[in-house]
Amino acid sequence: MGEDFWMKQSFLLKIILLFLLINILNTLSFAEDTSYGTAALMVIVERETGSITVLDTSKHTLLGRVTGLGNLNHGTVKFSKDGRYAYVISKDAFVSKIDLLTLKVVKKIKGGNESIGGTISQDGKYLIMSNYSPGEVRILSSDSLENVKVISAIREYEGGRIQSSKVVGLVDAPGNLLIFSLMDSNGIWVIDAGEKDFPVINKFWDIGEKPFDGLITPDGRYYLAGFLESDWFGLLDTWEMKEVKRIPTKDINNASEKNTVPLWKIPHLKGWAIAAGLAVLPAVQREAALIYDTKEWKLIKELPLIGTALYTVASPDNRYVWVDLVGKNGDIIQVIDLKSLEVIKTFSPGKGATHPQFTSKGDTVYISLMDEDKVVVYDPSTFEKVREFSLKSPSGIFSVDRIYKFGM
Amino acid sequence: MGEDFWMKQSFLLKIILLFLLINILNTLSFAEDTSYGTAALMVIVERETGSITVLDTSKHTLLGRVTGLGNLNHGTVKFSKDGRYAYVISKDAFVSKIDLLTLKVVKKIKGGNESIGGTISQDGKYLIMSNYSPGEVRILSSDSLENVKVISAIREYEGGRIQSSKVVGLVDAPGNLLIFSLMDSNGIWVIDAGEKDFPVINKFWDIGEKPFDGLITPDGRYYLAGFLESDWFGLLDTWEMKEVKRIPTKDINNASEKNTVPLWKIPHLKGWAIAAGLAVLPAVQREAALIYDTKEWKLIKELPLIGTALYTVASPDNRYVWVDLVGKNGDIIQVIDLKSLEVIKTFSPGKGATHPQFTSKGDTVYISLMDEDKVVVYDPSTFEKVREFSLKSPSGIFSVDRIYKFGM
Repeated sequence: MGEDFWMKQSFLLKIILLFLLINILNTLSFAEDTSYGTAALMVIVERETGSITVLDTSKHTLLGRVTGLGNLNHGTVKFSKDGRYAYVISKDAFVSKIDLLTLKVVKKIKGGNESIGGTISQDGKYLIMSNYSPGEVRILSSDSLENVKVISAIREYEGGRIQSSKVVGLVDAPGNLLIFSLMDSNGIWVIDAGEKDFPVINKFWDIGEKPFDGLITPDGRYYLAGFLESDWFGLLDTWEMKEVKRIPTKDINNASEKNTVPLWKIPHLKGWAIAAGLAVLPAVQREAALIYDTKEWKLIKELPLIGTALYTVASPDNRYVWVDLVGKNGDIIQVIDLKSLEVIKTFSPGKGATHPQFTSKGDTVYISLMDEDKVVVYDPSTFEKVREFSLKSPSGIFSVDRIYKFGM
Repeated sequence: MGEDFWMKQSFLLKIILLFLLINILNTLSFAEDTSYGTAALMVIVERETGSITVLDTSKHTLLGRVTGLGNLNHGTVKFSKDGRYAYVISKDAFVSKIDLLTLKVVKKIKGGNESIGGTISQDGKYLIMSNYSPGEVRILSSDSLENVKVISAIREYEGGRIQSSKVVGLVDAPGNLLIFSLMDSNGIWVIDAGEKDFPVINKFWDIGEKPFDGLITPDGRYYLAGFLESDWFGLLDTWEMKEVKRIPTKDINNASEKNTVPLWKIPHLKGWAIAAGLAVLPAVQREAALIYDTKEWKLIKELPLIGTALYTVASPDNRYVWVDLVGKNGDIIQVIDLKSLEVIKTFSPGKGATHPQFTSKGDTVYISLMDEDKVVVYDPSTFEKVREFSLKSPSGIFSVDRIYKFGM
């Protein structure tokens, strides 16, 4: 096609030919560069702007931002089984389904008034919300976000008094079960999400005062509820499903010790702090991490910290637990060695450091610096910073690897 | 654009306009349907045809086949951190890097004469081959597949005799280490893959006769080598890195018992049979599963099976171990309950049933029927078949979730 050919063509045809050429070049040169696998994606909540940022941790690259997701002063992110879609649940109970390949919201619904989070059922069919208001578990289709079932968290006392409750500590469990705690009526309920009508198959009452959160161990066997006003954890062995045992949160030789610090923030319990046959859990209103063995569930050690733990996060090699402090010394991360059961490192990655999250197999760890508008990436073996990103008041960090874990 | 406009245009322009229209329709209607996340992909080796088939287990759909991958009578599949690329290592030491989004081979190299598998380093930078011939560990760039380093598995005996060895049981380990066994010279070596020259930092000798495979526990702490000709496992605690302890494979009260069945096939050791504080491992040339506690590494029970175990695979809920038999009763799967430590189910999914692999959180399990050219999908809670696919002599099944696990 020489110059002659080009001159002969009409203006319209020229435009079209140019368009075609660009199209072909695009396909050939750039298509591959903009594709990515979804197995190493990380979603970071930007709490003040109601947005999330998506990163590919396999290359430590920032892919983009998605906005308009509601009030993310408390935000939770769940994923579809293939890691393609993220579900962002906002404090004001918006659920946004985001396509992580296009970074677009493909669906957004309002699922209540106030929500504290949610979970994905074992079979992936349902996204389940744990709501403060109304106090309920709300089961949505993970595909369409349509409402499938609402289960009100209501306790009927003898004499007829009715108590509605905030729902906390919602997890999925083996056998396609859902387990959660009722904050205002001191219960733990179990739902069978494999049955069509989602029956509540177990209700345990008066297990402790004011459950604030729960976790399920990574193997899916033990559900553990934390209490704001009782000196124990509640332990439900789902292999037995018979009773909620009391696991003391204080050394009995030291029983006179009182709560000594303010409740800066309600701690988070997550199954990721179960490692090396131990559970390392935040103490409530005390500057300590509580270390249990996960066979007998005995309190092995109360390890002093220089502040209150908000999160405890085990490294994927199960050797260390990174503790995120809140309130006093809130910029500090303390690292516990599970071999010696001692703190081996105390450092500040920056202002408002929170929510350490390891990449797969633990070669790096991402930390939000909420008050510096940054996310920093550390090499946990050297404590050297290897990367940083500018984000807007980043807080919660959520990896796609949650799809492989119960209660995440 | 009415009929008049259309009639006025040249033939060439008409063709181009039609092409454009098709292009636009394609983009609008079909682009979304052909995209997928990579976090739930499964790669199944087709041993006789040197091909693999890729499935999306989140929807139980077959995505396609990739051919020309070498001799897959023994084939191993590894994945890049983002789950985008699969690396297929063939028996004749071809390494094919496959883009799981396009199902194309993007790179193929020959990395030796005979290979038994490989691993991905903790940091994802290297694909490391364990080769029979030449006896070596071969370290490749996971990006380019270029040869980075070859470490010959050679033992120098006193008196100067040199013994080259097949490499088996290669795993990656925390601290960016590589650990493997030397089949013909009874050693375990440790490489530091975080150092530029990949130094061998530990060599343990005479740990047992003829190591055949190894595993690393999912937490990355314990390396375990199995032996064809010694009545123990070799256990290396990587937190100590001091000695390889001997863990008996026979009940000492029953020490007169001999090997009683042929070695149908060399068993596979994998970290996926470590669950609920137990390790459930195949016995060599005996019809039994060996159950250890993973704290003291004591043999708790030798559980009789109706054949020899090839693989033992724990369900993601850590409650059951599915045992794949080989040789006598080779079509049978036996299921062990980790609560009672008894076989609770014995069934045949079909001819040549092998390599059960659970999907994330264990709601389904894929099994190859090598001699029926099928892969079947079971609901492990009901033992009902929920799906089947036609494949060509399928054998090994590999999930993307391996990227989160040491030694996989």
